[in-house]
Amino acid sequence: MRITSQGLNMTSNSFPMMMSDPGVQHKLGTVCIFGTGDFGRSLGMRLLQSGYGVVFGSRNSRNFSLLPRGAQVLPHAEAAHTAQVIFIAMHREHYDFLCQTAGEALAGKVLVDVSNNLRRNQYPESNAEHLHQLIPAAFVVKAFNTVSAWSLQSGGLDANRQVLICGDSCEAKQIVVDITHSLGFTALDKGSLRAARELEDYPLQLFPLWKLPITLATCLTAFFFFYLLARNVIYAAVNDRKDISFQIMVSLANKVFPIVSLIMLALCYLPGAMAGFLQLYNGTKYRRFPAWLDRWMLCRKQLGLVALALAFLHVLYTLIIPMRYYIRHRLSDWTISQIKLNKTEAFDTTMAWRTDSYFSIGIVGFCFYILLGITSLPSVSNNINWREFRFIQSKLGHLTLFLCTTHAFLYGWDKFLRPSAYKWYLLPGYMLALVVPCVVLVLKLVLVTPCVDRAVTRIRQGWERKPACMGNWP
Amino acid sequence: MRITSQGLNMTSNSFPMMMSDPGVQHKLGTVCIFGTGDFGRSLGMRLLQSGYGVVFGSRNSRNFSLLPRGAQVLPHAEAAHTAQVIFIAMHREHYDFLCQTAGEALAGKVLVDVSNNLRRNQYPESNAEHLHQLIPAAFVVKAFNTVSAWSLQSGGLDANRQVLICGDSCEAKQIVVDITHSLGFTALDKGSLRAARELEDYPLQLFPLWKLPITLATCLTAFFFFYLLARNVIYAAVNDRKDISFQIMVSLANKVFPIVSLIMLALCYLPGAMAGFLQLYNGTKYRRFPAWLDRWMLCRKQLGLVALALAFLHVLYTLIIPMRYYIRHRLSDWTISQIKLNKTEAFDTTMAWRTDSYFSIGIVGFCFYILLGITSLPSVSNNINWREFRFIQSKLGHLTLFLCTTHAFLYGWDKFLRPSAYKWYLLPGYMLALVVPCVVLVLKLVLVTPCVDRAVTRIRQGWERKPACMGNWP
Amino acid sequence: MRITSQGLNMTSNSFPMMMSDPGVQHKLGTVCIFGTGDFGRSLGMRLLQSGYGVVFGSRNSRNFSLLPRGAQVLPHAEAAHTAQVIFIAMHREHYDFLCQTAGEALAGKVLVDVSNNLRRNQYPESNAEHLHQLIPAAFVVKAFNTVSAWSLQSGGLDANRQVLICGDSCEAKQIVVDITHSLGFTALDKGSLRAARELEDYPLQLFPLWKLPITLATCLTAFFFFYLLARNVIYAAVNDRKDISFQIMVSLANKVFPIVSLIMLALCYLPGAMAGFLQLYNGTKYRRFPAWLDRWMLCRKQLGLVALALAFLHVLYTLIIPMRYYIRHRLSDWTISQIKLNKTEAFDTTMAWRTDSYFSIGIVGFCFYILLGITSLPSVSNNINWREFRFIQSKLGHLTLFLCTTHAFLYGWDKFLRPSAYKWYLLPGYMLALVVPCVVLVLKLVLVTPCVDRAVTRIRQGWERKPACMGNWP
Repeated sequence: MRITSQGLNMTSNSFPMMMSDPGVQHKLGTVCIFGTGDFGRSLGMRLLQSGYGVVFGSRNSRNFSLLPRGAQVLPHAEAAHTAQVIFIAMHREHYDFLCQTAGEALAGKVLVDVSNNLRRNQYPESNAEHLHQLIPAAFVVKAFNTVSAWSLQSGGLDANRQVLICGDSCEAKQIVVDITHSLGFTALDKGSLRAARELEDYPLQLFPLWKLPITLATCLTAFFFFYLLARNVIYAAVNDRKDISFQIMVSLANKVFPIVSLIMLALCYLPGAMAGFLQLYNGTKYRRFPAWLDRWMLCRKQLGLVALALAFLHVLYTLIIPMRYYIRHRLSDWTISQIKLNKTEAFDTTMAWRTDSYFSIGIVGFCFYILLGITSLPSVSNNINWREFRFIQSKLGHLTLFLCTTHAFLYGWDKFLRPSAYKWYLLPGYMLALVVPCVVLVLKLVLVTPCVDRAVTRIRQGWERKPACMGNWP
Repeated sequence: MRITSQGLNMTSNSFPMMMSDPGVQHKLGTVCIFGTGDFGRSLGMRLLQSGYGVVFGSRNSRNFSLLPRGAQVLPHAEAAHTAQVIFIAMHREHYDFLCQTAGEALAGKVLVDVSNNLRRNQYPESNAEHLHQLIPAAFVVKAFNTVSAWSLQSGGLDANRQVLICGDSCEAKQIVVDITHSLGFTALDKGSLRAARELEDYPLQLFPLWKLPITLATCLTAFFFFYLLARNVIYAAVNDRKDISFQIMVSLANKVFPIVSLIMLALCYLPGAMAGFLQLYNGTKYRRFPAWLDRWMLCRKQLGLVALALAFLHVLYTLIIPMRYYIRHRLSDWTISQIKLNKTEAFDTTMAWRTDSYFSIGIVGFCFYILLGITSLPSVSNNINWREFRFIQSKLGHLTLFLCTTHAFLYGWDKFLRPSAYKWYLLPGYMLALVVPCVVLVLKLVLVTPCVDRAVTRIRQGWERKPACMGNWP
Repeated sequence: MRITSQGLNMTSNSFPMMMSDPGVQHKLGTVCIFGTGDFGRSLGMRLLQSGYGVVFGSRNSRNFSLLPRGAQVLPHAEAAHTAQVIFIAMHREHYDFLCQTAGEALAGKVLVDVSNNLRRNQYPESNAEHLHQLIPAAFVVKAFNTVSAWSLQSGGLDANRQVLICGDSCEAKQIVVDITHSLGFTALDKGSLRAARELEDYPLQLFPLWKLPITLATCLTAFFFFYLLARNVIYAAVNDRKDISFQIMVSLANKVFPIVSLIMLALCYLPGAMAGFLQLYNGTKYRRFPAWLDRWMLCRKQLGLVALALAFLHVLYTLIIPMRYYIRHRLSDWTISQIKLNKTEAFDTTMAWRTDSYFSIGIVGFCFYILLGITSLPSVSNNINWREFRFIQSKLGHLTLFLCTTHAFLYGWDKFLRPSAYKWYLLPGYMLALVVPCVVLVLKLVLVTPCVDRAVTRIRQGWERKPACMGNWP
């Protein structure tokens, strides 16, 4: 443990990990912070609360008033000598100035780069790597940039408590990890300093993997909304001179959501099938997929979760149907008309079978849907092995898709025979919804046929078709 | 690694981390346990199962019968010499006796304090720190006190598998962490020994952050229950001589739950707004909030989850309405009366619009509600960054509040115009429910107006209003 | 840190943890892989991407074409000399050959055994322990066998990102942990090499703890399905010549699911009660339970979750009832018949009370059910202490069972008085469903009576009844 023993020799302040003399264990040592901005101050406050000594390195003495009580302030170079660990809480622009003023003083120190940029790829290399190039004799660690000043003050009570750490020196990282724990955060080692770029991008991102699925869901929803608006509401207004616009709120929504949900569920499993055929075609798994397919496969989980949300909406919209004024009115009207005509409609067993199985399959499908959603929770998917993950996401996933597709077919039943279903020559929504799922199910069916399955499995196990032996697989 | 090499030199038992001779790796070394109580015995049993040698330190030889097979028993001082790590599984009262009998023998040893107290703040300092004061020459580590004897025996299979550890010496902690892993638990380092107090309080607490929200929910529920009981049931009994007490079970519950849920959801976002105005008033963020506001802000997550649970109840209570005998009876009565009077009520489009949008907005609001709940799961909130967390909990949170408030307004519609709504001059419940949410939404609206927003942002970024320049901000 | 310093002395490639010269921090060192199979190649590709140098150890030069660009290939012995860490990515059968060819070269190296077997208990001892016996002078670490080649290539983006690691040498483990982090995975230390068996079984298992509960659920479901099929559908067909087969889809399913759910919920709490009485009978808690009881207790969580799933199905099946064609038809028929007979049925308050409380209690029970499910999520149960866990799973659990049982009783009401309920002398399903829950509740009631409770508590605290003082407890 070279650094730390150095630490013992050259400075008086010692870290827990250096202390083997049990006598002085209650002093946690002194830490230095360069920069007196908001983050620096919040960090200093928290370090003081946790029992560290804090020395601020600052150019001028303008804004002492704001600094937490109990903290010293010194010029950078002098401050650097007081501690083994120095937090660099200043903007990248000042790094040059920093290494001019305190360059030598920082040699052999642990520099914790907490800086963030305003936007991604603002600079050629990450701030931490830049710092390390400026002061190669120091041990640079990237940490705390994913933590906000606010959660430092509140102790991260209701927010993310993880501090991501990366750096090339393990001893340096260990020291920062100890400080992290003392501040009441948990540390997650992200490897070498080359991960700094990733860490600096992390706080800037806003659900990157969700963008594509949510955009897709929005477009599909908008399209089907206007499609069905034209086909149902406007058609009724134009042809039958009937105002059924009130149906937009529930009836229409309850057509759009399940349609989009089913299509998106199918889109979760389409890339997998396409990848299978692509590998068959290439005769190897070692050729990269086209970029768009890769991107698509990476957001399958998010696609599925958005689909689940829409399915959930569909379920709720369906369950409130019997409470709607429109439905109640129609039912009592119907009963009254029956009486007037003085006839009772005979009970239609086929109808009962059809509607009941339609509901039943929908319910079971939805339960599997939920199951898929639950298993995609981080804490759950971290507790199942690869085989179990494949079983649920692939086997149960396709079963869910099959059930939901059947649900849609039962909904349609014989509608497609009636001419009334083709208003303005527009297909009913549920038919459009069935295209993609059917394609996916057919593709999957082909892939699981023994001969194809064998070929794919061999390829996935690393087998490669030589140009020579092109013909020798099924 | 001083301790461990000491370990090698002075004793024959070696820990995995000390063994660099690969030959003897299958012996995990000997561990000593002081105290033959239930926890000591369970710990010993588990250590033996995991392949450690176990020596019990005991005053007398009374209760050998109970000790696990394969364990030695020696007087404290002798026992101490057999191992580098000693678990102190005895009550704090006996610590003095312990350091009299075995004081010297414990110097340089790793003492694992597993003790718990009967209630919080039973003693001025934590047991572990007390032990360290008695035997300063030992390396005291607090661990395993959060684990129950039962889960030690069962291997913590269906319970919390985390062992919280704190101590001042990192080498000592590392040794205990290794033992923890060998016993099949995961270790979580909580920092220096000063965290021992927190660790000793941990097993005593019972949902501390939930107390306030649940008490609040109970009081609100009770109040609104009796308020509506008087307003609806008793009023009907007194004025109309009608017994509608059966409505208590569903109708009344389904009024109380949404009301309390909406109020509590609003109470999640009220402190945030108040904090904003307080910071504006103080002109700085570095002045502490009053204690009650801090406490309030700390349990916002729990407030929200209780509100979600009540909203969930509301949804279920609503969905079963059409199945109720009362409703079915009323509907068929209504139909029959229609026939008798031989008239059919015309379809009221406004009514259809109103009820449908009421349902629709409620459903969408509930889905956002659920989304907020899911993102507050530890494993989810640990995987989103600060910006994403803020986006969901603040932006989506206020949107949810807005939707649910609109839902309540649509429910009320023009009820407030009818005199019949003010039985005994008591306002209908939904009106009372709307007060807090409206206040919160208005406050938030003020805070997001550009000029105010700019001021708040500046303050949150650490800017401070000097007494001098009091006037120079909007 | 003996190994690593050895590493420094004997080889030119250095790991982050060895590097104290900050100059060369961007080179991550060279790693050697024995075996050029699919896993070996994927691992090599990933290591290269992460900035490691990779040398493959291979017998022949047949399949170089497949190896990732940038990797060297050497005979085993020579390859071994190039690196401190060697991944053994070959089948156990070749281990003997390996130690013949490269035995000495492997002395003092870190050997990472990534192998898996085809089935459990294929060999007397785990592959890693076998390897260690063959090459005792090496530091064997078991790791990466729980990761699939696919998730190595995709960077484990949508799968489990945890790498389980075990081994006897902590320095060796630390080196592998660092590599794990550099590859973008998280590492979980599972203790000493004796855990290798467990790690090698891990990827082979498919929900082991779920087998029993799911089998049980299937059997119970099948039994009650045919039981009720006979009792309702077939009976109607035979006696009344009526075809009500359509009821299979919803009505019957909605009888079977709640019955099985209630029974399985009761079965979660039965073993606990039995254990209590067993301990009372034994007068000690230190005698092991019979194996079947242990197995039962280990899968209580899964039993409960399956029960929850069935309860969820029951809720959905119930909520769609009013939308069913069958129900709507019956209701309008009933109304029409009322008119024909020109009478209106008086409103029955008892009926209203009964159905409403039946719904109300069912809803509250279901909410507690869900609460139990949520708290059994890993990330949640890891954040609550033992006392809180006991409170929820035991107290709230029994409350849930009580509520659901009451729900069933209210459903039954006075049905048991009507002779029509005993078609073909078969009891109605709900009566069978009530047997186990009632037994559990009665047992629990006995256990919580003060005197018994005191005795059990004493025993659970480690007290033992001596044969002598057999009589002296209540």
